Amino acid sequence: MRNQQVLLASRPEGMPQPSNFKIVESDIARPQPGQFLVQTHYLSVDPYMRGRMRDVKSYADPVAIGEVMVGGTVGKVIESQHARYRPDDLVVGSWGWQSYAVTDGKECYRLPPSEAPLSTALGVRGMPGLTAYFGLLEIGKPQPGETVFVTAAAGAVGSLVGQIAKIHGCRVVGSAGSDAKVAHLIDDLGFDVAFNYRQSSDVAAELYECCPTGIDLFFDNVGGALSDAAFAQINQSARVVICGQIDQYNADSPPQGPRLLWHLIVKRARVQGFLVFDFVDRYRHALEQIDQWMREGKVQYRETVVDGLENAPNAFIGLFRGENLGKQLVRLI
Amino acid sequence: MRNQQVLLASRPEGMPQPSNFKIVESDIARPQPGQFLVQTHYLSVDPYMRGRMRDVKSYADPVAIGEVMVGGTVGKVIESQHARYRPDDLVVGSWGWQSYAVTDGKECYRLPPSEAPLSTALGVRGMPGLTAYFGLLEIGKPQPGETVFVTAAAGAVGSLVGQIAKIHGCRVVGSAGSDAKVAHLIDDLGFDVAFNYRQSSDVAAELYECCPTGIDLFFDNVGGALSDAAFAQINQSARVVICGQIDQYNADSPPQGPRLLWHLIVKRARVQGFLVFDFVDRYRHALEQIDQWMREGKVQYRETVVDGLENAPNAFIGLFRGENLGKQLVRLI
Repeated sequence: MRNQQVLLASRPEGMPQPSNFKIVESDIARPQPGQFLVQTHYLSVDPYMRGRMRDVKSYADPVAIGEVMVGGTVGKVIESQHARYRPDDLVVGSWGWQSYAVTDGKECYRLPPSEAPLSTALGVRGMPGLTAYFGLLEIGKPQPGETVFVTAAAGAVGSLVGQIAKIHGCRVVGSAGSDAKVAHLIDDLGFDVAFNYRQSSDVAAELYECCPTGIDLFFDNVGGALSDAAFAQINQSARVVICGQIDQYNADSPPQGPRLLWHLIVKRARVQGFLVFDFVDRYRHALEQIDQWMREGKVQYRETVVDGLENAPNAFIGLFRGENLGKQLVRLI
Repeated sequence: MRNQQVLLASRPEGMPQPSNFKIVESDIARPQPGQFLVQTHYLSVDPYMRGRMRDVKSYADPVAIGEVMVGGTVGKVIESQHARYRPDDLVVGSWGWQSYAVTDGKECYRLPPSEAPLSTALGVRGMPGLTAYFGLLEIGKPQPGETVFVTAAAGAVGSLVGQIAKIHGCRVVGSAGSDAKVAHLIDDLGFDVAFNYRQSSDVAAELYECCPTGIDLFFDNVGGALSDAAFAQINQSARVVICGQIDQYNADSPPQGPRLLWHLIVKRARVQGFLVFDFVDRYRHALEQIDQWMREGKVQYRETVVDGLENAPNAFIGLFRGENLGKQLVRLI
């Protein structure tokens, strides 16, 4: 039994390529006192990882060339010399793109018993779910009757944003990159309107049709032209939540676009970025709320799962092509 | 005795020209019951008026071709058939670019007795002062020890923003368009650092020298390249107050620039636009506070005054060339 790892082989220019990654095998390390050995069951791939591949100081350090790619993980303890973890414990952490890891447990938590599938700890009951919850409710502050527009609405975060906004009495409009996703938003997730921005010859006109009374809350996962169109259609006292800018992540030179700040004066609007980690003290309460909504049938989720660590690079690259519906995962076992 | 008026003759393309205005004379109207006649002493010219010259729906209607230009005014009641106003009352209003006006008093208020010069009702004790006060304190929420960067720092709003930020214990950095203004900011107004952005070959590097620990609160009156540089240097949890974008107002096509939203995620920052009118219920308290600061010598102001209504167009155009120090006024009497 060997440890399989995906290393960062080179820094991508533009869209990441499989050649930016290198798959290696090594012996499995043994845990020392205070450590445990965990076997990865699921690995999360997320757009933010593109930022970590860049050699730029940001809110977190970049991955070094030759290092294991970062990423959220869920797995089972195999062997422990750690006081708080025992074999067969299910743990959630960030030990990255590898099949086994030895960890001191500092960035991990034990998953409480639940009927929910293990994989949801990386999606609706994990970082993307928490991102949607805090970004919408704490930053966006939706009010009943308001129009909420969410981009990448069929993704792990966007799908939850739309459903939570519906729970809060909003009219919810979503954009997605395929007709199947649009149908899913409306038929399965209860969005009021949705449109396929890739099929649209005039995104601004399409958005206007979907939001005839303007946008009160814009939850942006995408950036770029779609975001520009939304900024031009915000209402007075609108809030714009900047959660992600996936359309920009592969740009090698600073992307240009129309200047947007003037809209903010005229509309007395607020634009705010956030990171989910800033709400860590309140994760537990949020997860209980999400669990309750799922039990009540008010929140659904989807997962797109590929098997095998060797397919992690392509699963990651697929995010930028919109190949995932809901949460993109890699199943290792 | 005739009424002199400045009308909007044509809509400017790019920088406004004197030919966009037309000066006419007419008989002075007589007040009817419920009205009074006021003689203008001072007229305010402000960057926002460029927006009103554009035939675009915004937070206020545009000025129609042939209409009197809008603008804040202070003057004296000459004749009254209004229950609440008497001859010799000093009134502040928005009767526009004309030497006399008949008004129903709805958009006016009587100036309380004060030792302050009449002109200050259009500057430090008027709309620009209130804009600085609410924009900085209510939108920006400065904390002691924070670095505040303000653009157009020698203007009517910026000069007050900097001084109020100093009162609140901040380190204050300002940009202005001439060496004389920079000296004024440091020597007279107590700014910690200031720089002449027009003399700078690398605005970003100069800003970095002035703000070595980053920018916690960015109060923007200007937009454009200077604003781009500031966005790239904001700190975690920064607030950006969008008060004006004078650098953009004369653009005839939507201005382009680097996309800024990504900074907001990484820095968990907030950008917010505002209009002073939203705080109308609290004007009185703010003006009392500003008066007190002036009495205590903590707030100074400057005015740039031109004489004669016929010079109002050039005074207005001069705003875009940075010809004013402090509040730009036109004195009619």
